[in-house]
Amino acid sequence: MTSGHGVWITFEGGDGSGKTTQSNLLAEWLEGAGRTVVRTREPGGSEVGQLIRDIVLHHRGDIAPRAEALLYAADRAHHVATVVRPALARGHIVLQDRYLDSSVAYQGAGRVLDAAEIRDLSLWAAEGALPDLTILLDLEPAAARARLDSADKPFDRLEAEKAEFHERVRDAFLGLAEEEEDRFLVVDASSAPEIIAERIRAGVDALLD
Amino acid sequence: MTSGHGVWITFEGGDGSGKTTQSNLLAEWLEGAGRTVVRTREPGGSEVGQLIRDIVLHHRGDIAPRAEALLYAADRAHHVATVVRPALARGHIVLQDRYLDSSVAYQGAGRVLDAAEIRDLSLWAAEGALPDLTILLDLEPAAARARLDSADKPFDRLEAEKAEFHERVRDAFLGLAEEEEDRFLVVDASSAPEIIAERIRAGVDALLD
Repeated sequence: MTSGHGVWITFEGGDGSGKTTQSNLLAEWLEGAGRTVVRTREPGGSEVGQLIRDIVLHHRGDIAPRAEALLYAADRAHHVATVVRPALARGHIVLQDRYLDSSVAYQGAGRVLDAAEIRDLSLWAAEGALPDLTILLDLEPAAARARLDSADKPFDRLEAEKAEFHERVRDAFLGLAEEEEDRFLVVDASSAPEIIAERIRAGVDALLD
Repeated sequence: MTSGHGVWITFEGGDGSGKTTQSNLLAEWLEGAGRTVVRTREPGGSEVGQLIRDIVLHHRGDIAPRAEALLYAADRAHHVATVVRPALARGHIVLQDRYLDSSVAYQGAGRVLDAAEIRDLSLWAAEGALPDLTILLDLEPAAARARLDSADKPFDRLEAEKAEFHERVRDAFLGLAEEEEDRFLVVDASSAPEIIAERIRAGVDALLD
Protein backbone atom coordinates (compact mmCIF):
# COMPACT_ATOMS: atom_id res chain seq x y z
CA MET A 1 0.00 0.00 0.00
CA THR A 2 2.19 2.77 -1.27
CA SER A 3 -0.42 5.33 -2.33
CA GLY A 4 -0.15 7.41 0.84
CA HIS A 5 2.11 8.07 3.80
CA GLY A 6 -0.16 6.43 6.35
CA VAL A 7 0.00 2.88 7.67
CA TRP A 8 -2.69 0.28 7.12
CA ILE A 9 -3.08 -2.54 9.65
CA THR A 10 -5.78 -5.21 9.44
CA PHE A 11 -6.94 -7.66 12.11
CA GLU A 12 -7.97 -11.15 11.05
CA GLY A 13 -9.20 -14.24 12.84
CA GLY A 14 -12.44 -15.97 13.75
CA ASP A 15 -15.22 -14.42 15.81
CA GLY A 16 -14.22 -14.54 19.48
CA SER A 17 -10.48 -14.40 18.78
CA GLY A 18 -10.16 -10.98 20.44
CA LYS A 19 -9.83 -8.67 17.43
CA THR A 20 -11.85 -5.85 19.00
CA THR A 21 -9.99 -6.01 22.32
CA GLN A 22 -6.60 -5.96 20.63
CA SER A 23 -7.58 -3.24 18.20
CA ASN A 24 -8.70 -1.10 21.17
CA LEU A 25 -5.42 -1.65 23.00
CA LEU A 26 -3.33 -0.90 19.91
CA ALA A 27 -5.33 2.25 19.17
CA GLU A 28 -4.81 3.51 22.74
CA TRP A 29 -1.09 2.88 22.50
CA LEU A 30 -0.74 4.57 19.11
CA GLU A 31 -2.81 7.58 20.15
CA GLY A 32 -0.74 7.83 23.32
CA ALA A 33 2.29 8.10 21.03
CA GLY A 34 0.65 11.01 19.22
CA ARG A 35 -0.55 9.17 16.11
CA THR A 36 -3.92 9.74 14.47
CA VAL A 37 -5.79 6.45 14.29
CA VAL A 38 -8.79 5.66 12.08
CA ARG A 39 -10.81 2.63 13.24
CA THR A 40 -12.81 0.84 10.58
CA ARG A 41 -14.06 -2.57 9.49
CA GLU A 42 -15.34 -4.71 6.66
CA PRO A 43 -18.06 -5.35 5.90
CA GLY A 44 -19.94 -2.20 6.86
CA GLY A 45 -17.12 0.35 7.23
CA SER A 46 -18.93 2.94 5.10
CA GLU A 47 -22.53 4.12 4.82
CA VAL A 48 -23.04 2.14 1.61
CA GLY A 49 -21.24 -0.76 3.27
CA GLN A 50 -23.71 -0.81 6.14
CA LEU A 51 -26.57 -1.21 3.68
CA ILE A 52 -24.66 -4.07 2.05
CA ARG A 53 -23.81 -5.65 5.41
CA ASP A 54 -27.50 -5.63 6.31
CA ILE A 55 -28.27 -7.62 3.18
CA VAL A 56 -25.49 -10.16 3.69
CA LEU A 57 -25.93 -10.79 7.41
CA HIS A 58 -29.62 -10.35 7.96
CA HIS A 59 -31.48 -11.27 4.79
CA ARG A 60 -34.02 -14.00 5.41
CA GLY A 61 -33.40 -16.84 2.99
CA ASP A 62 -30.33 -17.99 1.14
CA ILE A 63 -28.16 -15.72 -0.93
CA ALA A 64 -26.47 -17.39 -3.90
CA PRO A 65 -22.77 -17.97 -3.04
CA ARG A 66 -21.42 -15.82 -5.85
CA ALA A 67 -23.87 -13.04 -4.98
CA GLU A 68 -22.61 -13.08 -1.40
CA ALA A 69 -18.99 -12.91 -2.52
CA LEU A 70 -19.80 -10.03 -4.87
CA LEU A 71 -21.62 -8.12 -2.13
CA TYR A 72 -18.57 -8.37 0.13
CA ALA A 73 -16.41 -7.23 -2.78
CA ALA A 74 -18.71 -4.25 -3.42
CA ASP A 75 -18.46 -3.24 0.22
CA ARG A 76 -14.67 -3.54 -0.08
CA ALA A 77 -14.46 -1.45 -3.24
CA HIS A 78 -16.44 1.40 -1.70
CA HIS A 79 -14.69 1.18 1.65
CA VAL A 80 -11.14 1.19 0.27
CA ALA A 81 -11.91 4.02 -2.15
CA THR A 82 -13.78 6.28 0.25
CA VAL A 83 -12.40 5.47 3.72
CA VAL A 84 -9.02 3.70 3.63
CA ARG A 85 -7.24 5.50 0.80
CA PRO A 86 -8.24 9.01 1.95
CA ALA A 87 -7.10 8.24 5.52
CA LEU A 88 -3.75 6.90 4.33
CA ALA A 89 -3.31 9.92 2.07
CA ARG A 90 -3.70 12.10 5.16
CA GLY A 91 -0.96 10.12 6.89
CA HIS A 92 -3.22 8.39 9.41
CA ILE A 93 -2.91 4.89 10.82
CA VAL A 94 -5.86 2.75 9.74
CA LEU A 95 -6.81 -0.12 12.07
CA GLN A 96 -9.28 -2.33 10.28
CA ASP A 97 -11.34 -5.26 11.50
CA ARG A 98 -11.25 -7.87 8.67
CA TYR A 99 -10.18 -7.46 5.06
CA LEU A 100 -9.68 -9.69 2.03
CA ASP A 101 -8.12 -12.52 4.02
CA SER A 102 -11.48 -12.99 5.74
CA SER A 103 -13.20 -13.21 2.37
CA VAL A 104 -10.73 -15.81 1.14
CA ALA A 105 -10.90 -17.81 4.39
CA TYR A 106 -14.69 -17.69 4.85
CA GLN A 107 -15.87 -17.70 1.24
CA GLY A 108 -13.11 -19.64 -0.44
CA ALA A 109 -12.23 -22.28 2.11
CA GLY A 110 -15.50 -22.39 4.01
CA ARG A 111 -17.95 -22.25 1.13
CA VAL A 112 -18.15 -23.67 -2.34
CA LEU A 113 -16.12 -21.04 -4.18
CA ASP A 114 -12.53 -21.10 -5.38
CA ALA A 115 -10.15 -19.27 -3.03
CA ALA A 116 -8.00 -17.86 -5.83
CA GLU A 117 -11.06 -16.44 -7.58
CA ILE A 118 -12.24 -14.79 -4.37
CA ARG A 119 -8.82 -13.23 -3.89
CA ASP A 120 -8.76 -11.93 -7.47
CA LEU A 121 -12.23 -10.49 -7.02
CA SER A 122 -11.17 -8.66 -3.85
CA LEU A 123 -8.03 -7.31 -5.44
CA TRP A 124 -10.02 -6.06 -8.44
CA ALA A 125 -12.47 -4.37 -6.04
CA ALA A 126 -9.65 -2.69 -4.10
CA GLU A 127 -7.49 -1.89 -7.13
CA GLY A 128 -4.78 -4.12 -5.70
CA ALA A 129 -4.55 -2.49 -2.26
CA LEU A 130 -2.95 -4.68 0.42
CA PRO A 131 -2.32 -3.75 4.08
CA ASP A 132 1.15 -2.95 5.41
CA LEU A 133 0.55 -5.42 8.23
CA THR A 134 -2.07 -8.09 8.90
CA ILE A 135 -2.39 -9.35 12.47
CA LEU A 136 -3.86 -12.84 12.60
CA LEU A 137 -5.28 -13.72 16.01
CA ASP A 138 -5.12 -17.49 15.90
CA LEU A 139 -7.38 -19.42 18.24
CA GLU A 140 -8.93 -22.89 18.33
CA PRO A 141 -12.61 -22.60 17.36
CA ALA A 142 -13.68 -24.33 20.58
CA ALA A 143 -11.94 -21.66 22.67
CA ALA A 144 -13.43 -18.88 20.55
CA ARG A 145 -16.87 -20.46 20.93
CA ALA A 146 -16.50 -20.53 24.71
CA ARG A 147 -15.61 -16.83 24.76
CA LEU A 148 -18.59 -15.91 22.63
CA ASP A 149 -20.89 -18.01 24.83
CA SER A 150 -19.66 -16.32 27.98
CA ALA A 151 -20.14 -12.91 26.39
CA ASP A 152 -23.69 -14.00 25.54
CA LYS A 153 -23.51 -12.30 22.16
CA PRO A 154 -26.28 -12.94 19.66
CA PHE A 155 -25.16 -15.13 16.75
CA ASP A 156 -25.31 -13.81 13.21
CA ARG A 157 -25.74 -16.04 10.19
CA LEU A 158 -22.04 -16.91 9.88
CA GLU A 159 -21.53 -17.53 13.59
CA ALA A 160 -24.35 -20.02 13.57
CA GLU A 161 -22.62 -22.34 11.11
CA LYS A 162 -21.01 -25.56 12.21
CA ALA A 163 -17.81 -26.05 14.20
CA GLU A 164 -16.26 -27.90 11.29
CA PHE A 165 -16.67 -24.81 9.16
CA HIS A 166 -14.73 -22.76 11.74
CA GLU A 167 -11.93 -25.34 11.67
CA ARG A 168 -11.64 -24.95 7.90
CA VAL A 169 -11.62 -21.16 8.27
CA ARG A 170 -8.83 -21.33 10.83
CA ASP A 171 -6.74 -23.57 8.58
CA ALA A 172 -7.35 -21.21 5.67
CA PHE A 173 -6.15 -18.19 7.68
CA LEU A 174 -2.98 -20.03 8.71
CA GLY A 175 -2.38 -21.04 5.11
CA LEU A 176 -2.69 -17.43 3.96
CA ALA A 177 -0.25 -16.29 6.63
CA GLU A 178 2.27 -18.86 5.44
CA GLU A 179 1.96 -17.66 1.85
CA GLU A 180 2.61 -14.03 2.79
CA GLU A 181 4.94 -14.17 5.77
CA ASP A 182 6.08 -10.58 5.32
CA ARG A 183 2.61 -9.13 5.57
CA PHE A 184 1.32 -11.34 8.40
CA LEU A 185 1.97 -11.34 12.12
CA VAL A 186 0.45 -14.49 13.59
CA VAL A 187 -0.31 -14.24 17.30
CA ASP A 188 -1.43 -17.04 19.64
CA ALA A 189 -4.76 -15.64 20.79
CA SER A 190 -5.08 -18.06 23.69
CA SER A 191 -2.56 -16.02 25.69
CA ALA A 192 -3.55 -13.30 28.15
CA PRO A 193 -4.72 -10.08 26.41
CA GLU A 194 -1.77 -8.04 27.70
CA ILE A 195 0.75 -10.58 26.39
CA ILE A 196 -0.94 -10.58 22.99
CA ALA A 197 -0.97 -6.77 23.01
CA GLU A 198 2.75 -6.70 23.75
CA ARG A 199 3.52 -8.94 20.77
CA ILE A 200 1.37 -6.76 18.53
CA ARG A 201 3.03 -3.56 19.75
CA ALA A 202 6.46 -5.05 19.00
CA GLY A 203 5.36 -5.90 15.44
CA VAL A 204 3.82 -2.49 14.85
CA ASP A 205 6.81 -0.73 16.35
CA ALA A 206 9.09 -2.50 13.87
CA LEU A 207 6.77 -1.48 11.03
CA LEU A 208 6.66 2.19 12.04
CA ASP A 209 10.42 2.50 12.37
CA MET B 1 -27.67 -21.33 -22.15
CA THR B 2 -27.92 -25.07 -22.38
CA SER B 3 -28.66 -25.95 -18.76
CA GLY B 4 -32.43 -26.30 -19.27
CA HIS B 5 -35.04 -26.79 -21.95
CA GLY B 6 -36.47 -23.28 -21.71
CA VAL B 7 -35.61 -20.25 -23.80
CA TRP B 8 -34.00 -17.12 -22.43
CA ILE B 9 -34.58 -13.81 -24.20
CA THR B 10 -33.19 -10.48 -22.98
CA PHE B 11 -34.19 -6.95 -24.03
CA GLU B 12 -31.50 -4.30 -24.22
CA GLY B 13 -31.42 -0.62 -25.15
CA GLY B 14 -31.52 2.79 -23.50
CA ASP B 15 -34.35 4.03 -21.29
CA GLY B 16 -37.25 5.10 -23.51
CA SER B 17 -36.39 2.66 -26.30
CA GLY B 18 -39.61 0.69 -25.73
CA LYS B 19 -38.33 -2.42 -23.96
CA THR B 20 -41.37 -2.71 -21.69
CA THR B 21 -43.88 -2.24 -24.50
CA GLN B 22 -42.19 -4.83 -26.69
CA SER B 23 -41.74 -7.28 -23.85
CA ASN B 24 -45.47 -6.98 -23.11
CA LEU B 25 -46.40 -7.61 -26.75
CA LEU B 26 -44.06 -10.58 -27.05
CA ALA B 27 -45.34 -12.09 -23.80
CA GLU B 28 -48.96 -11.81 -25.01
CA TRP B 29 -48.06 -13.47 -28.28
CA LEU B 30 -46.14 -16.30 -26.63
CA GLU B 31 -48.84 -16.93 -24.04
CA GLY B 32 -51.42 -16.92 -26.83
CA ALA B 33 -49.39 -19.71 -28.40
CA GLY B 34 -49.62 -21.68 -25.15
CA ARG B 35 -46.12 -21.02 -23.80
CA THR B 36 -45.39 -20.25 -20.15
CA VAL B 37 -43.61 -16.92 -19.88
CA VAL B 38 -41.60 -15.64 -16.91
CA ARG B 39 -41.09 -11.86 -16.92
CA THR B 40 -38.08 -10.56 -15.04
CA ARG B 41 -35.43 -7.86 -15.01
CA GLU B 42 -32.02 -6.79 -13.81
CA PRO B 43 -31.29 -5.15 -11.54
CA GLY B 44 -33.99 -6.01 -9.04
CA GLY B 45 -35.42 -9.26 -10.43
CA SER B 46 -35.21 -11.05 -7.06
CA GLU B 47 -35.94 -10.06 -3.49
CA VAL B 48 -32.24 -9.68 -2.71
CA GLY B 49 -31.89 -7.85 -6.03
CA GLN B 50 -34.48 -5.27 -5.03
CA LEU B 51 -32.47 -4.44 -1.94
CA ILE B 52 -29.37 -4.08 -4.12
CA ARG B 53 -31.24 -2.02 -6.71
CA ASP B 54 -32.34 0.36 -3.96
CA ILE B 55 -28.72 0.93 -3.01
CA VAL B 56 -27.50 1.49 -6.57
CA LEU B 57 -30.29 3.73 -7.80
CA HIS B 58 -31.32 5.66 -4.75
CA HIS B 59 -28.35 6.00 -2.43
CA ARG B 60 -27.61 9.64 -1.67
CA GLY B 61 -24.00 10.37 -2.49
CA ASP B 62 -21.55 8.76 -4.87
CA ILE B 63 -20.87 5.05 -4.97
CA ALA B 64 -17.32 4.11 -5.99
CA PRO B 65 -17.40 2.88 -9.62
CA ARG B 66 -16.09 -0.60 -8.83
CA ALA B 67 -18.56 -0.92 -5.95
CA GLU B 68 -21.41 -0.09 -8.32
CA ALA B 69 -20.23 -2.66 -10.86
CA LEU B 70 -19.91 -5.30 -8.12
CA LEU B 71 -23.41 -4.55 -6.80
CA TYR B 72 -24.87 -5.08 -10.27
CA ALA B 73 -22.88 -8.30 -10.54
CA ALA B 74 -24.19 -9.49 -7.14
CA ASP B 75 -27.74 -8.83 -8.27
CA ARG B 76 -26.99 -10.81 -11.42
CA ALA B 77 -25.47 -13.76 -9.58
CA HIS B 78 -28.48 -14.12 -7.31
CA HIS B 79 -31.01 -13.52 -10.09
CA VAL B 80 -29.54 -16.03 -12.53
CA ALA B 81 -29.13 -18.68 -9.82
CA THR B 82 -32.54 -18.30 -8.20
CA VAL B 83 -34.86 -17.01 -10.96
CA VAL B 84 -33.52 -17.61 -14.48
CA ARG B 85 -31.98 -21.07 -14.18
CA PRO B 86 -34.94 -22.59 -12.30
CA ALA B 87 -37.40 -21.17 -14.87
CA LEU B 88 -35.36 -22.52 -17.78
CA ALA B 89 -35.09 -25.89 -16.08
CA ARG B 90 -38.91 -25.97 -15.96
CA GLY B 91 -39.01 -25.32 -19.71
CA HIS B 92 -40.38 -21.77 -19.46
CA ILE B 93 -39.61 -18.82 -21.69
CA VAL B 94 -37.81 -16.10 -19.72
CA LEU B 95 -38.26 -12.53 -20.97
CA GLN B 96 -35.78 -10.32 -19.17
CA ASP B 97 -35.39 -6.54 -19.13
CA ARG B 98 -31.61 -5.88 -19.27
CA TYR B 99 -28.72 -8.27 -18.68
CA LEU B 100 -24.93 -8.18 -18.94
CA ASP B 101 -24.91 -6.14 -22.13
CA SER B 102 -26.40 -3.26 -20.15
CA SER B 103 -23.62 -3.57 -17.59
CA VAL B 104 -20.96 -3.52 -20.27
CA ALA B 105 -22.58 -0.63 -22.15
CA TYR B 106 -23.37 1.55 -19.13
CA GLN B 107 -20.46 0.72 -16.85
CA GLY B 108 -17.75 -0.08 -19.34
CA ALA B 109 -18.37 2.43 -22.10
CA GLY B 110 -20.21 5.06 -20.11
CA ARG B 111 -18.11 5.09 -16.96
CA VAL B 112 -14.46 4.79 -16.12
CA LEU B 113 -14.18 1.01 -16.04
CA ASP B 114 -12.81 -1.41 -18.59
CA ALA B 115 -15.55 -3.06 -20.68
CA ALA B 116 -13.78 -6.42 -20.87
CA GLU B 117 -13.37 -6.52 -17.09
CA ILE B 118 -17.06 -5.75 -16.59
CA ARG B 119 -18.00 -8.53 -18.97
CA ASP B 120 -15.71 -11.01 -17.18
CA LEU B 121 -17.19 -9.98 -13.84
CA SER B 122 -20.73 -10.57 -15.11
CA LEU B 123 -19.85 -13.93 -16.59
CA TRP B 124 -18.23 -14.99 -13.32
CA ALA B 125 -21.37 -13.88 -11.46
CA ALA B 126 -23.65 -15.84 -13.81
CA GLU B 127 -21.34 -18.87 -14.15
CA GLY B 128 -21.10 -18.11 -17.86
CA ALA B 129 -24.81 -17.99 -18.63
CA LEU B 130 -25.72 -16.17 -21.86
CA PRO B 131 -29.22 -15.66 -23.31
CA ASP B 132 -30.45 -17.59 -26.35
CA LEU B 133 -31.52 -14.28 -27.92
CA THR B 134 -30.87 -10.64 -27.09
CA ILE B 135 -33.17 -8.07 -28.65
CA LEU B 136 -31.50 -4.67 -28.93
CA LEU B 137 -33.99 -1.83 -29.35
CA ASP B 138 -31.83 0.77 -31.02
CA LEU B 139 -32.92 4.40 -30.79
CA GLU B 140 -31.26 7.81 -30.98
CA PRO B 141 -30.94 9.19 -27.45
CA ALA B 142 -32.78 12.38 -28.45
CA ALA B 143 -35.82 10.35 -29.54
CA ALA B 144 -35.70 8.25 -26.37
CA ARG B 145 -35.46 11.44 -24.30
CA ALA B 146 -38.56 12.88 -26.01
CA ARG B 147 -40.52 9.70 -25.22
CA LEU B 148 -39.50 9.77 -21.57
CA ASP B 149 -40.40 13.47 -21.34
CA SER B 150 -43.86 12.89 -22.81
CA ALA B 151 -44.43 9.99 -20.42
CA ASP B 152 -43.48 12.36 -17.59
CA LYS B 153 -41.57 9.63 -15.82
CA PRO B 154 -39.39 10.57 -12.86
CA PHE B 155 -35.67 10.33 -13.68
CA ASP B 156 -33.45 8.05 -11.70
CA ARG B 157 -29.76 8.63 -11.15
CA LEU B 158 -28.65 7.10 -14.46
CA GLU B 159 -31.35 8.79 -16.53
CA ALA B 160 -30.28 12.15 -15.22
CA GLU B 161 -26.82 11.88 -16.74
CA LYS B 162 -25.86 13.80 -19.81
CA ALA B 163 -26.91 13.23 -23.42
CA GLU B 164 -23.33 12.53 -24.41
CA PHE B 165 -23.29 9.62 -22.01
CA HIS B 166 -26.36 8.13 -23.70
CA GLU B 167 -24.65 8.44 -27.09
CA ARG B 168 -21.71 6.44 -25.78
CA VAL B 169 -24.05 3.82 -24.36
CA ARG B 170 -25.86 3.47 -27.69
CA ASP B 171 -22.56 3.04 -29.54
CA ALA B 172 -21.47 0.45 -26.99
CA PHE B 173 -24.69 -1.57 -27.46
CA LEU B 174 -24.26 -1.53 -31.24
CA GLY B 175 -20.65 -2.62 -30.85
CA LEU B 176 -21.69 -5.56 -28.67
CA ALA B 177 -24.32 -6.61 -31.21
CA GLU B 178 -21.69 -6.61 -33.94
CA GLU B 179 -19.38 -8.79 -31.87
CA GLU B 180 -22.09 -11.40 -31.25
CA GLU B 181 -24.29 -11.34 -34.33
CA ASP B 182 -25.76 -14.77 -33.63
CA ARG B 183 -27.07 -13.82 -30.21
CA PHE B 184 -28.35 -10.34 -31.08
CA LEU B 185 -31.39 -9.15 -32.99
CA VAL B 186 -31.03 -5.40 -33.57
CA VAL B 187 -34.33 -3.63 -34.19
CA ASP B 188 -34.85 -0.02 -35.27
CA ALA B 189 -36.88 1.27 -32.33
CA SER B 190 -38.01 4.43 -34.13
CA SER B 191 -40.56 2.38 -36.11
CA ALA B 192 -44.19 1.96 -35.05
CA PRO B 193 -44.59 -0.44 -32.11
CA GLU B 194 -46.51 -3.02 -34.16
CA ILE B 195 -43.80 -3.09 -36.86
CA ILE B 196 -41.14 -3.59 -34.19
CA ALA B 197 -43.23 -6.33 -32.59
CA GLU B 198 -43.55 -8.09 -35.94
CA ARG B 199 -39.78 -8.13 -36.42
CA ILE B 200 -39.28 -9.46 -32.90
CA ARG B 201 -41.89 -12.20 -33.40
CA ALA B 202 -40.12 -13.28 -36.59
CA GLY B 203 -36.82 -13.54 -34.74
CA VAL B 204 -38.33 -15.44 -31.82
CA ASP B 205 -40.26 -17.72 -34.15
CA ALA B 206 -37.02 -18.70 -35.88
CA LEU B 207 -35.43 -19.37 -32.48
CA LEU B 208 -38.29 -21.56 -31.24
CA ASP B 209 -38.38 -23.69 -34.38
